[in-house]
Amino acid sequence: MIFHDRPAFPRGFRCASRNCGLKPSAKDLTLFVSDTDAAAAAVFTRNHFPGAPVILGRETIAGGRLRGIAANSKYSNVATGERGLENARRMAAAAAAEVGTSASRMLVSSTGVIGAQLPIEKIERGLAGISGELQGDPVVGAEGIMTTDTHPKALSTSVQAATITWVAKGSGMIEPNMATMLAYIFTDAEFDAPALDRMLRLAVDVSFNMLSIDTDTSTSDTCAILANGLAGMVDPAEFQRALTAGCIRMAEMLARDGEGAQHLVRATVRGAATDADARRVAKSLVNSPLVKTMVHGADPNVGRLLMAVGKCFECAIRPTTTDAWIGGHPVVVGGERLDFDERAVRAALARESVDLEVALGAGDASATAYGCDLSTGYIEENAAYYSS
Amino acid sequence: MIFHDRPAFPRGFRCASRNCGLKPSAKDLTLFVSDTDAAAAAVFTRNHFPGAPVILGRETIAGGRLRGIAANSKYSNVATGERGLENARRMAAAAAAEVGTSASRMLVSSTGVIGAQLPIEKIERGLAGISGELQGDPVVGAEGIMTTDTHPKALSTSVQAATITWVAKGSGMIEPNMATMLAYIFTDAEFDAPALDRMLRLAVDVSFNMLSIDTDTSTSDTCAILANGLAGMVDPAEFQRALTAGCIRMAEMLARDGEGAQHLVRATVRGAATDADARRVAKSLVNSPLVKTMVHGADPNVGRLLMAVGKCFECAIRPTTTDAWIGGHPVVVGGERLDFDERAVRAALARESVDLEVALGAGDASATAYGCDLSTGYIEENAAYYSS
Repeated sequence: MIFHDRPAFPRGFRCASRNCGLKPSAKDLTLFVSDTDAAAAAVFTRNHFPGAPVILGRETIAGGRLRGIAANSKYSNVATGERGLENARRMAAAAAAEVGTSASRMLVSSTGVIGAQLPIEKIERGLAGISGELQGDPVVGAEGIMTTDTHPKALSTSVQAATITWVAKGSGMIEPNMATMLAYIFTDAEFDAPALDRMLRLAVDVSFNMLSIDTDTSTSDTCAILANGLAGMVDPAEFQRALTAGCIRMAEMLARDGEGAQHLVRATVRGAATDADARRVAKSLVNSPLVKTMVHGADPNVGRLLMAVGKCFECAIRPTTTDAWIGGHPVVVGGERLDFDERAVRAALARESVDLEVALGAGDASATAYGCDLSTGYIEENAAYYSS
Repeated sequence: MIFHDRPAFPRGFRCASRNCGLKPSAKDLTLFVSDTDAAAAAVFTRNHFPGAPVILGRETIAGGRLRGIAANSKYSNVATGERGLENARRMAAAAAAEVGTSASRMLVSSTGVIGAQLPIEKIERGLAGISGELQGDPVVGAEGIMTTDTHPKALSTSVQAATITWVAKGSGMIEPNMATMLAYIFTDAEFDAPALDRMLRLAVDVSFNMLSIDTDTSTSDTCAILANGLAGMVDPAEFQRALTAGCIRMAEMLARDGEGAQHLVRATVRGAATDADARRVAKSLVNSPLVKTMVHGADPNVGRLLMAVGKCFECAIRPTTTDAWIGGHPVVVGGERLDFDERAVRAALARESVDLEVALGAGDASATAYGCDLSTGYIEENAAYYSS
């Protein structure tokens, strides 16, 4: 998969971002717009305490059509009750008025502090006139949705005559289940909403749903795709391949920018008895604090890999058929630690992207999970993150 | 439950500990002995990669009788294959020879680095003559099994004419499932092995199995109870109460001494639809890195509590009936953040023991889980812990 050197929007999509006073000076409000109505699909967090924008978003996406997305950072509008839902509706209405469409065609997202009411007047004032600033660089939109992200995240690629563009954010409270915190996908390819929904779920299943920064599933996770059809039809199989590859690449970017992270960790499990086993073991590897600190310390403590595999009680795992690799170097064969070249393995662990691989010898299923190392930066960031 | 000011052994139990050269100078070898054969029961890790001592221990405990326990720190004898099992057998034989019993009456445990062969000759030399040093202070035994523990852990209490004594270790790689890393319980009450096994499982279920320091389940977890009967029969119900209370207190001590920890976190869930739901949600609270760093930072970020409850997808949870307390102060009612007294709640979070409480309003089941905060000390300890 080749991504564009500079991310660009598909035909007919633009965005703008502003500071509307939620943060002291950084951008905190973004508007994405399609020139025409787009077919749309979305997946949301499975957390039992979804934010008001997620509750409203489920209603909105049922219509299968969107003109755009309005998103703010700093406040998540979660645990805010009826007033929170009312504020989410006002935000959708203000964005719709600005774009010239109905509120039912605008998806809204909010991320940030939980439990505080949205300063809705500031957002309404911020949306007024923002359409005059719409422009073609998706990075500008990515800037307005950042919370603890260290850089804005956008990607694009071509599929035949069409373009797919990803804009996302997220660096903590991330073990998505259905979607990552916020990931928006724009395309000018032509698909109807049910097709988009099917393709989005397939792509999310092997990308954002296999991403974990800290095992904590956000109350705001939203992943949406908008297809305005301006480039006409493209081959669905090729589109699916590109959609999946871009979602995986974006999941890697989110993992690498995990709070305090210095490494991307990719854990691949092969030879599992079932898909569920492969996914469970791969997630166990990227979620284990001892594996994460091992990568952070670049120490080939292979016992921790075996521990993280072995604690998946419900999976079909036999020590005698279990092999493991770090950065391609074999470190475990048949459940026993090999006498490996420590210098080479330490060097592999010190790279920015670290590949852990386990073969279970129990079947044909495989899966890859995406995570990051655990550093003192994560602790400092989250122990000092004040809720008010 | 009243514990003795200074932990003491029941009649007929003694211990000794030594440095046998596994560590530079700290104690690394412990022997616990009963003067007479004791009825015994044990539970072990459910990790798929159990250490050789656990594999051997399952054989040994099937006999239902033990004279003693030999345990070393620094090497765990895990992922060591046939030679590892042979070394565990040699360790049991050497301890049995020293005590004057058969190897099948000696339980052995090893904890420490995974994947290195046990320096068995050093251990055999260390066990030779150690019975001349047997004495009556259980803390001496606790010293020889410490790894990253900051202090030795022992407790004792009286049940009628009998005594129960707990000796344990463990501060990382701890989310036991069946038992914590190493916990030994000694009593002079008279019970047969099946009764001990039944009582031990009941006690472990609400104590060590509800303990999590880092979600990582050790390959060496062992919890054993030895009853030599020298104090005769005691009331079983009273014994069970004391056994359970002591296991809970020891779980709290292990949690408080979690790697890098500065707080014990007790998470109680009430009003759950089922026991499984209550346990799942309580564990989710003590395992969430964002809740753990919230406690570390003493910040009442109640959204993180709701997030950790809400990510238990499979549990019966309704925002509108969910209430939460921090240190007894109500912070959430009906899924919404209350306008609480921040200073009081911050003070509650700054205490050494922090109580988090959630009422789900879905039924009558309850559970308590035991954990600790997450600090930079955990990262530093585990990123710097070298495997060789």
